[in-house]
Amino acid sequence: MSEKLNELKEILGEVRDLYHAASVLEWDQNVSMPPGGSEARGQQLSTLGKIAHEKSTSDKVGKLLDELKKEFTDKDSDEAALIRVTARNYEKSTRVPASFVAEQAIVTAKAFDVWVEAKGKSDFSIFQPHLERVVEMTQKYISFFPPADHPYDVLLDDYEPGMKTADVKEIFDHLRPQQVKLLKAIRSAKQVKDDFLFKKYNEKKVWDFGEKIITKFGYEWSRGRQDKAPHPFQTTFSVNDTRITNRFEPNNPLSTLFSAMHEAGHAMYEQGSNPAYERTPLAGGTSLAVHESQSRMWENLVGRSLPFWEHFFPEMKKTFPSQLDGISLKTFYKGINKVEPSLIRVNADEATYNLHVMLRLELEIGMIEGKFAIKDMPEIWNSKMQDYLGIVPPDDAHGVLQDVHWSNGLMGYFSTYALGNLVSAQLWEKINKDIKDLDDQIRMGKFDSLLNWLRGKIHIFGQKYDPQDLVQKVTGSKIDAAAYVRYLTKKYSDIYGL
Amino acid sequence: MSEKLNELKEILGEVRDLYHAASVLEWDQNVSMPPGGSEARGQQLSTLGKIAHEKSTSDKVGKLLDELKKEFTDKDSDEAALIRVTARNYEKSTRVPASFVAEQAIVTAKAFDVWVEAKGKSDFSIFQPHLERVVEMTQKYISFFPPADHPYDVLLDDYEPGMKTADVKEIFDHLRPQQVKLLKAIRSAKQVKDDFLFKKYNEKKVWDFGEKIITKFGYEWSRGRQDKAPHPFQTTFSVNDTRITNRFEPNNPLSTLFSAMHEAGHAMYEQGSNPAYERTPLAGGTSLAVHESQSRMWENLVGRSLPFWEHFFPEMKKTFPSQLDGISLKTFYKGINKVEPSLIRVNADEATYNLHVMLRLELEIGMIEGKFAIKDMPEIWNSKMQDYLGIVPPDDAHGVLQDVHWSNGLMGYFSTYALGNLVSAQLWEKINKDIKDLDDQIRMGKFDSLLNWLRGKIHIFGQKYDPQDLVQKVTGSKIDAAAYVRYLTKKYSDIYGL
Repeated sequence: MSEKLNELKEILGEVRDLYHAASVLEWDQNVSMPPGGSEARGQQLSTLGKIAHEKSTSDKVGKLLDELKKEFTDKDSDEAALIRVTARNYEKSTRVPASFVAEQAIVTAKAFDVWVEAKGKSDFSIFQPHLERVVEMTQKYISFFPPADHPYDVLLDDYEPGMKTADVKEIFDHLRPQQVKLLKAIRSAKQVKDDFLFKKYNEKKVWDFGEKIITKFGYEWSRGRQDKAPHPFQTTFSVNDTRITNRFEPNNPLSTLFSAMHEAGHAMYEQGSNPAYERTPLAGGTSLAVHESQSRMWENLVGRSLPFWEHFFPEMKKTFPSQLDGISLKTFYKGINKVEPSLIRVNADEATYNLHVMLRLELEIGMIEGKFAIKDMPEIWNSKMQDYLGIVPPDDAHGVLQDVHWSNGLMGYFSTYALGNLVSAQLWEKINKDIKDLDDQIRMGKFDSLLNWLRGKIHIFGQKYDPQDLVQKVTGSKIDAAAYVRYLTKKYSDIYGL
Repeated sequence: MSEKLNELKEILGEVRDLYHAASVLEWDQNVSMPPGGSEARGQQLSTLGKIAHEKSTSDKVGKLLDELKKEFTDKDSDEAALIRVTARNYEKSTRVPASFVAEQAIVTAKAFDVWVEAKGKSDFSIFQPHLERVVEMTQKYISFFPPADHPYDVLLDDYEPGMKTADVKEIFDHLRPQQVKLLKAIRSAKQVKDDFLFKKYNEKKVWDFGEKIITKFGYEWSRGRQDKAPHPFQTTFSVNDTRITNRFEPNNPLSTLFSAMHEAGHAMYEQGSNPAYERTPLAGGTSLAVHESQSRMWENLVGRSLPFWEHFFPEMKKTFPSQLDGISLKTFYKGINKVEPSLIRVNADEATYNLHVMLRLELEIGMIEGKFAIKDMPEIWNSKMQDYLGIVPPDDAHGVLQDVHWSNGLMGYFSTYALGNLVSAQLWEKINKDIKDLDDQIRMGKFDSLLNWLRGKIHIFGQKYDPQDLVQKVTGSKIDAAAYVRYLTKKYSDIYGL
């Protein structure tokens, strides 16, 4: 192998080690760290990040990349992919001056503090000047890059490499009216019953049931673990150590089950990445949307399906006999799929979730374009809520102030949540063509054909292919709303008798 | 403040962050990591260690130190101490070539594997060539340093800065005959009863009891935590995050209590270090012996004392009524202090522990001097066991092969265990002069005066003073065996009616 490639891999390996070390520190911060530890931990993470950044943006890396681009010209080779992904990361990191990164850290740290206060008081006007600063900084960030078709492209590319704003708009323009229409139909149908989901459930029994499910899915405990944390998340320290966290909310006890499936979906993607990519930027999931396609598939297309509960419901009833007394499988299935427009994105059901996301994307694009004045955001938010979901927030805390993302300077991120849903349905149609008896397998609690399909078609490739290319390669078309609309329509027609 | 000092502190801070990050990774490895994670973890630790080493041995650091030595001449200032300790570390790290460090890592990795095998088969001859290599490497290590009074000084100084082999020999020469004599007297007295310690105890109840004790000691949970691990240890991520681990051994259930006290002793030392020393080499305990003086004080001088159990025994009996049925306070106290020469150092009681250590020190010095042939080690070991403890191991596994240290290349370390015991007794005499009613306080379960004394006289100074200087400063004399002999003699005369 090329000596220069080895040299590059050596540096990339150290950078990767530093980022994974930082991930361990962050995991500990969420799972174990005593309160006293936080100040020093911030310092430690900042040092690791700084060294990793220095190492990955050195002139030496730039020079090696230039030389290696000429050496590895077979576009489909792992080497070329490695060089392409590394070069993209390198260009991004070197375009943005360190002074800007430092300034942005200060702006967003302040904005976050003010957002917490403003949300507490439900008063957008307190947050407004800080959101204005965040948007200015984001526009400045965009200015470091060559002009794109749309300025928002620069932001989107950080989370969905290769994806354009125009593509997302087109997809969402197709999706929105159909989701709105479906939602209207559901709302005029008879509502399903779900009170049994909110009874008192024993925490340990729910937790163990969740672990039983994801064990059957194929989450490998010898290469992972589940811990309690304030929020469910998945984190990767290596292909052989990808962990998940979860929580128990007494007022929504069974959400622990679905969070376990969701995070295990992320983790199994990481566990399936090609071990040959370890300590290189090709390891792990290729984008947020594809990652979300995996988590949402296991959580929703599998975990909220009828065949799934045909298998698990008897045991569920045995485990929670009093809570589920008199509840039939069909009633349970309908209950966990209840549709009800709600104000808060993170609590939204499958039929409304994407509408929350589309609203945010439109607002972000408007802010970046300068078309929307920041002071008008609460009003714009509320009127779109009325249009898409038919409900209006009573205050800013339940409206424009609900999400943390903007205060953190995260713009360009939201659409990946919805794109992930779409991809999950596209893959699902393809999988069902390849595995004819998938429903029957699920009905028997067998998930190995499904996991093996995902391993071979998606997971193994790590970040070798950009998301659109990967979806095209596997399903024959790019990311597109049609499959998801078919999936939603069929599912809810059945549940609500539309 | 001097700009150069700030520059140095900046570098030292990053190095400290890297070492603390490595400690988090090691803690996780012992407490949480799934088996799959180990290969990547080794790589991550190696990268962190490499970068920390590079940063702390750069020419820039050397230059800054040279300039700062001239600037800060007030020997008692924190700045001068920082420069002195940093310069010592710098000199040590730069004297040893990276190629040697790499070679040693390979030699000891192999030696460790072979030691595991040799111990399993209880056959020293398998380990012999590897121990020979380790000793050769250690001699080579010594050769990088200027000639000392004794070659072993170089090794000792890595763990007990400023301590000389001649000093330790003199201390031990005074101590050994007195411990041997005391042991003989005990062995001819009537043995105490301790079968009640080895009944079946509930793990969670023992664990909780241990946490109750160390909470009363003053271990701060907002700046620490206790987790289960294969071996008890203490680790520091910052002055505000110093954690301990513990285990439960069903065949020695109450050892969990004493391990908790021992590790909490280490942790409280670290929690008491001057916060102004954070992210510098002055933070944390000053040497292994002083560290051990803290852990052994809380474990033995406090935790195996009669006043301590006058307070805790009633609750102990209430918690374990069947196990302690019919057992009086005095019987319990005698039981936990039972003396019985045993083959294994880590299980040794207070009256025999130091004898195990002295034996090892003599063997190490003999190996380094080349006076003892490695092939003769089992024989030498066994004959010294006969002399000091009156018992002879039945095989190498229970003799010369019992400790992991040599296979890891750790030579110069053992004596600190015994020195720590001596220091604990020296401090104890001084504390009892300063706090007249200490026994009464302990009898009432009050430990705040004791902890405050340790905080103000020992903990707060971090690594500002070398161990001998610190002990001198606090007790008026250097490390010395007299107080420990007085302590042992009084305690065991009472228990065994000598």
